[in-house]
Amino acid sequence: MRVMGVDPGLTRCGLSLVESGRGRQITALDVDVVRTPSEAPLAKRLLTISDAVEHWLDTHHPDVLAIERVFSQVNLMTVMGTAQAGGVIALAAAKRDIDVHFHTPTEVKAAVTGNGAADKAQVTAMVTRILALQAKPTPADAADALALAICHCWRAPMLARMAAAEAKAAEQRRAYLAKLKAGR
Amino acid sequence: MRVMGVDPGLTRCGLSLVESGRGRQITALDVDVVRTPSEAPLAKRLLTISDAVEHWLDTHHPDVLAIERVFSQVNLMTVMGTAQAGGVIALAAAKRDIDVHFHTPTEVKAAVTGNGAADKAQVTAMVTRILALQAKPTPADAADALALAICHCWRAPMLARMAAAEAKAAEQRRAYLAKLKAGR
Repeated sequence: MRVMGVDPGLTRCGLSLVESGRGRQITALDVDVVRTPSEAPLAKRLLTISDAVEHWLDTHHPDVLAIERVFSQVNLMTVMGTAQAGGVIALAAAKRDIDVHFHTPTEVKAAVTGNGAADKAQVTAMVTRILALQAKPTPADAADALALAICHCWRAPMLARMAAAEAKAAEQRRAYLAKLKAGR
Repeated sequence: MRVMGVDPGLTRCGLSLVESGRGRQITALDVDVVRTPSEAPLAKRLLTISDAVEHWLDTHHPDVLAIERVFSQVNLMTVMGTAQAGGVIALAAAKRDIDVHFHTPTEVKAAVTGNGAADKAQVTAMVTRILALQAKPTPADAADALALAICHCWRAPMLARMAAAEAKAAEQRRAYLAKLKAGR
């Protein structure tokens, strides 16, 4: 499975591409950080990010796009910018019928380091080790994008089982309601 | 000037189109509300909104897109969804080189009713009167989208003067710095 990981942001947006192999084996294929100037109009900044993500999707053809889900940040303006960037990134995938999954920072840290409250240095160190990289990925946004893709690879089987269980439960609910209706 | 107003939202997204005439005269050309089901995946919901906005932009060719800027809402999940929707809407305009302007709810209410703290009923009543509509626009998202477009029409001359003044100041700063540099 080929997974593209995105750490959304207006100023710096981390992009990564990994391929999962047997068991927990994962290979890094590409990583980059898209930057947009803070003095540019918001719509233009979103266009720069959208263009970069669309180029990656069309070049690398990932099976899945994994995006960081941001719940809380100190600065509301930063949250808004991150959400707006996340929106255009998810849209680019939806336009290509590529599945989009969101993972929270806690889920990413827990998957990669075993500790949901790990700091940036720990995440970077584990990403470097898991992917057997020659050097630490920098800036932090690049490491975060890789961590996100790793997290998705490892959580995907569990997410698939959960989705299957939910679909089965919904099917049983439908069958039960149909039976009730027929009995009336 | 033809202005498209958008009240962004995932569940309901209000779209409007108005044309400004002489003085403060404004004519409503179209209004609609795009809805997406809350049980659909986020990326698909954003795609539905993006498709609708792109269709409007390509059909109506507005000169400007005015979007509501959301600063604070009670529910953080709603803020995020609104920001994500706002992001894909601004992107659609940027792709077509259409100017995007953001106005806060307070600016919209103040422009339309004269009171930045007006309630929804007052906004709807004033929108109905300003545009000389036969009936009140419903739901509230439709009225809000129209109010946003009206707000932009009336604020545009002031915004243009401010932008011109800022550009002039920046030019004077550049000239002054160049002079200093040449004097060294």
